Amino acid sequence: SNMAESTNMRLRLPLLCIILEVILIILFGALVEYNDDTHAKLWNANKSHSATRDDYENEFYYRYPSFQDVHVMIFVGFGFLMTFLQRYGFSSVGFNFLIAAFSLQWATLMQGFFHGMHHGKIHVGVTSMINADFCTGSVLISFGAVLGKTSPVQLLVMAIFEVTLFAVNEFILLSMLGANDAGGSMTIHTFGAYFGLMVTRVLYRPNLDKSKHRNSSVYHSDLFAMIGTIYLWMFWPSFNSAITNYGDPQHRTALNTYYSLAACTLATFAFSALVNPEGKLDMVHIQNAALAGGVAVGTAGEMMLTPFGSMIVGFLAGTISVLGYKYLTPVLESKLKIQDTCGIHNLHGMPGVLGAVVGAVTSALASPGFTLYYFYDVFADAETGKWNPQSRGGFQAISLAVTLGMALFGGLVTGFILKLPIYGAPPDTHCFEDGLYWEVPGEEEGHELNEVATPNEMEKLNS
Amino acid sequence: SNMAESTNMRLRLPLLCIILEVILIILFGALVEYNDDTHAKLWNANKSHSATRDDYENEFYYRYPSFQDVHVMIFVGFGFLMTFLQRYGFSSVGFNFLIAAFSLQWATLMQGFFHGMHHGKIHVGVTSMINADFCTGSVLISFGAVLGKTSPVQLLVMAIFEVTLFAVNEFILLSMLGANDAGGSMTIHTFGAYFGLMVTRVLYRPNLDKSKHRNSSVYHSDLFAMIGTIYLWMFWPSFNSAITNYGDPQHRTALNTYYSLAACTLATFAFSALVNPEGKLDMVHIQNAALAGGVAVGTAGEMMLTPFGSMIVGFLAGTISVLGYKYLTPVLESKLKIQDTCGIHNLHGMPGVLGAVVGAVTSALASPGFTLYYFYDVFADAETGKWNPQSRGGFQAISLAVTLGMALFGGLVTGFILKLPIYGAPPDTHCFEDGLYWEVPGEEEGHELNEVATPNEMEKLNS
Amino acid sequence: SNMAESTNMRLRLPLLCIILEVILIILFGALVEYNDDTHAKLWNANKSHSATRDDYENEFYYRYPSFQDVHVMIFVGFGFLMTFLQRYGFSSVGFNFLIAAFSLQWATLMQGFFHGMHHGKIHVGVTSMINADFCTGSVLISFGAVLGKTSPVQLLVMAIFEVTLFAVNEFILLSMLGANDAGGSMTIHTFGAYFGLMVTRVLYRPNLDKSKHRNSSVYHSDLFAMIGTIYLWMFWPSFNSAITNYGDPQHRTALNTYYSLAACTLATFAFSALVNPEGKLDMVHIQNAALAGGVAVGTAGEMMLTPFGSMIVGFLAGTISVLGYKYLTPVLESKLKIQDTCGIHNLHGMPGVLGAVVGAVTSALASPGFTLYYFYDVFADAETGKWNPQSRGGFQAISLAVTLGMALFGGLVTGFILKLPIYGAPPDTHCFEDGLYWEVPGEEEGHELNEVATPNEMEKLNS
Repeated sequence: SNMAESTNMRLRLPLLCIILEVILIILFGALVEYNDDTHAKLWNANKSHSATRDDYENEFYYRYPSFQDVHVMIFVGFGFLMTFLQRYGFSSVGFNFLIAAFSLQWATLMQGFFHGMHHGKIHVGVTSMINADFCTGSVLISFGAVLGKTSPVQLLVMAIFEVTLFAVNEFILLSMLGANDAGGSMTIHTFGAYFGLMVTRVLYRPNLDKSKHRNSSVYHSDLFAMIGTIYLWMFWPSFNSAITNYGDPQHRTALNTYYSLAACTLATFAFSALVNPEGKLDMVHIQNAALAGGVAVGTAGEMMLTPFGSMIVGFLAGTISVLGYKYLTPVLESKLKIQDTCGIHNLHGMPGVLGAVVGAVTSALASPGFTLYYFYDVFADAETGKWNPQSRGGFQAISLAVTLGMALFGGLVTGFILKLPIYGAPPDTHCFEDGLYWEVPGEEEGHELNEVATPNEMEKLNS
Repeated sequence: SNMAESTNMRLRLPLLCIILEVILIILFGALVEYNDDTHAKLWNANKSHSATRDDYENEFYYRYPSFQDVHVMIFVGFGFLMTFLQRYGFSSVGFNFLIAAFSLQWATLMQGFFHGMHHGKIHVGVTSMINADFCTGSVLISFGAVLGKTSPVQLLVMAIFEVTLFAVNEFILLSMLGANDAGGSMTIHTFGAYFGLMVTRVLYRPNLDKSKHRNSSVYHSDLFAMIGTIYLWMFWPSFNSAITNYGDPQHRTALNTYYSLAACTLATFAFSALVNPEGKLDMVHIQNAALAGGVAVGTAGEMMLTPFGSMIVGFLAGTISVLGYKYLTPVLESKLKIQDTCGIHNLHGMPGVLGAVVGAVTSALASPGFTLYYFYDVFADAETGKWNPQSRGGFQAISLAVTLGMALFGGLVTGFILKLPIYGAPPDTHCFEDGLYWEVPGEEEGHELNEVATPNEMEKLNS
Repeated sequence: SNMAESTNMRLRLPLLCIILEVILIILFGALVEYNDDTHAKLWNANKSHSATRDDYENEFYYRYPSFQDVHVMIFVGFGFLMTFLQRYGFSSVGFNFLIAAFSLQWATLMQGFFHGMHHGKIHVGVTSMINADFCTGSVLISFGAVLGKTSPVQLLVMAIFEVTLFAVNEFILLSMLGANDAGGSMTIHTFGAYFGLMVTRVLYRPNLDKSKHRNSSVYHSDLFAMIGTIYLWMFWPSFNSAITNYGDPQHRTALNTYYSLAACTLATFAFSALVNPEGKLDMVHIQNAALAGGVAVGTAGEMMLTPFGSMIVGFLAGTISVLGYKYLTPVLESKLKIQDTCGIHNLHGMPGVLGAVVGAVTSALASPGFTLYYFYDVFADAETGKWNPQSRGGFQAISLAVTLGMALFGGLVTGFILKLPIYGAPPDTHCFEDGLYWEVPGEEEGHELNEVATPNEMEKLNS
């Protein structure tokens, strides 16, 4: 069959986008309402109850800067991090943009449905915006595993299922098990990573080496990717602290993440040079492993982990991440048939699991003398008197197991759905290639770049 | 005549810049004062009036994060969005930088003169900074229409006139007509777009196709442009909400804009694929049309538009914007002789008008039961009891008409002023070319890039 | 001797990174504690002392947005500003990343040791994060002088010494002399610049012209550098105001910096065109000199400098900076043997000294009628009644002299330490070259870029 036809998006993509958006609009019309802080009537009504509360106390002023940092991570961070491929920059930024714009709407509904219904309505505000962006992050992590090997239609279909399961898993962890996971070591990173790894396993392409020459970077594409890396790195303290409780927990989470990332970066440079025969640094490590420290304090960051503890965790995370890129990823591909384009197992998978374990241990070790104030701010059941460090640690551990199960099962089912030959997936010969789904500027223009008037020519013109 | 001489900026540009800055400095010295929140004496004096007011309540903490987001949109957003041309990146970012730095100073004076005089002095603070950036945005929109076809001197002259008229129009709309337009669908986008379109019409170049080979993108320039797009997209919620009233209106505006943009993005991808014979996505659409949703809720965003309404508006905006790029822009050029380099009619013109209409309709439909609290926060005349939804809707509609008239008339006059042959405009053969006004790294250096030591060479060197 | 061996980082870099991080972790474990605003117990304990204080009043909400802006300047601003070299982008962003991640940890300890000990412990929170980033900025300024001529090991060693001396100098200025320098004209810019200039003087390479062909930009590298410039420019108001007192001083500092930078930008464009025989703008000037206005109001920005005064200072700073690049830098290299890759003398050195002088003059001229409220917010000794404008101005001037002395002496010693032949410094023939320390994508991949399927080819494939 004709390749151009088999990958043609002319009907598939518009149809899916329009149907999805119409469904979203209808559901938003039926179910979504402004919450107390965004509704003209309700906000003012609340004000009258309390003489001291005024417009300055709207949650907007305490959450919105964090939201914008998270938003930058989702759209610039993830989007540009994936532009490292030489000929897949349009798709990396563009499909990231598309599936994120869809996912955040769908996540608002799914998360609202599972844990935010008020008299049959979903209430929205800046906190729901952050949560929706978080859920979107999880989809983008999975995108990293299948990068270059999927059509935009496949990605949207993946997002439909992944967002739904994310919301279910999040509900089980946070509402049923009472787990803490403000920065999403489990809900976002572990879930997104193992879901994506299972999807790419099911979509295994034995002949992917036909596109091998495009599955690497060029000089400038690596610099574009560093834009993504640096933004993720800088704003990760905001990511982990965005939905913690107000006051010291939010402040502490940002601080812990800052130190964890700094220590992680030194470990990354150290091991990147160490594992290279010539002692040369590898951009893949710097772009990715230096971020693992943010992932690994996603659960314990809001706890009294201390800067000391954070740095140890960050150092470990950077180390296992570099070693994973060097030694584990090739094995996963050759032995387990997991083709993980961005190495999400090293950036989100292992560091996510590490973060979950650190969270469980930190919870279990919380000393009683401390908890009087400690759990008041961090743990949900503090006020109910149910507090018990050991059982808390246990619930955190169970949460990790549930997340892994949900992710692997969900990825398996979703993978098989994505395998249907109806989505216009790229052929093995044209993976990692923008030209399949994008109008790419032709060679003529590329050539022009060297044909503009040089100073000499311009002098001639003028004489 | 000699081209290098006719476009030489050696005297023209320094002279204009220095004269303008000296005038600005003198006027600032004579007219500008710190406002109550930035003045050491006044701020402390105010504090003593109220026992509860303290340093934490300075407006800085409630406006400055929004200001910084707007600032990023003006300098990175607009600047990089226009780098899509293969050989005009220095000018796009650089001239954007120059005219924005001038415009924000001039706008502070003009806006202060028209609606911020206190005993003969202009008071400045974070709100005036945001307003000045807004006015600057309008100039940068017009820049998009003439991109590649004007000298920096022309652009500065355009900015002088456009900023002045912007302030007049803004005064008429906000102070005389009492219109609402917090995100500037009318004052910023409609005004900037039709002003710029009229300027480019007057500056029509029949022989522009002599530079046609440079009037397109290359692979990397499209990626640079996506940096601009994504930053504009992410921070648009801050743009629309930056100067609304505190509390629920600001929160609601950010939320509405977020949903409008998300829906707009899905429409953009859908229609971009649909209008292409091979179903391929067009970077021009993604870079621009995906932003139309932010423009289109610039007026109604602070009202009780609901997420549902915002998504409908966003979806419409994305749709008309893509269709405009595909079908209308070529007609505007061939029939109306409007050479619109960036397609600002599709991103700011039509979506701006749509936003004005949505604002008028939303105002007119505001239900009485709602308005008790609703208008208190959003509409200026709420407390005076003059409230009437229908007349309010009417004033909003009149505001659109005034804006269109001011923009077209102002652009006409400014266009003729810019047509004088004294500004060093580029010849038809050298439009869209950095080399005219910039020292551009020569071919030798470009060549070097391929001549650095490869690993093999280095081995040889070392043996 | 073999070059590849002499510059091999395989043992040197990992060893140094791991040893440093282990030392940091041990010292953090022994010395660092959460401060009152980040500690679960202390924050809540404090709350109970005051009925009106609540979680919303945590300093996090008043400092963290500023911190994030500063953080962006350190990692994106400095990092990308230095990518202007054609073949040193990996190192510019990458080594910037590495030494910043190390410096902020080391600075936390050094600054805490010199002016933040509480019962033998260093207390950390968002203010210490900002201060650590500030100190890091100073190291990155020095990095600009030696860019392309040092190994990452040399840079880390430089950072160890520079951070330490920075903390000593800061202690002398702020704690002993009671100087004001919120934006760091002296502590950050003057110190970092003259330290770096002395280091590069000691490391003088007579045969550096062997790498001359790589010591320049290409078209795209200049655009990457503009990302750095624009982010530094936009967020400089946040930088200068990040650690001022709350309320009007913070607000005023941001405002003053905003106007100074705007005026500086017009001066930069004016003089860049004026000093070029063809009137063409030079990217080096735009990328750097346009920022000098931020440096030059780093001391006086928080004072009642007025927008008028700020614009004059900014205009002067831009002017001397461009003239410095054009006329002084070549002389410094040929006569004084100072090879200043990024021209930090023009961006940080002279504008820093200008800023110190402006600060001293502004302090000395503070009118008595004004100071009642003025010094209350800005000057440390206001409440103690020691206030005296003239002596204040004198202490500011002494502070500049101390800073220059510390920087030159520190740079001298550090330079000789860095001269030891054990750090794997690049040979004169391979300066400004990523390939020495990085795995750089080979030519094959670069070639591929032109070999992807064109539309025509794809049609053929499909037929």
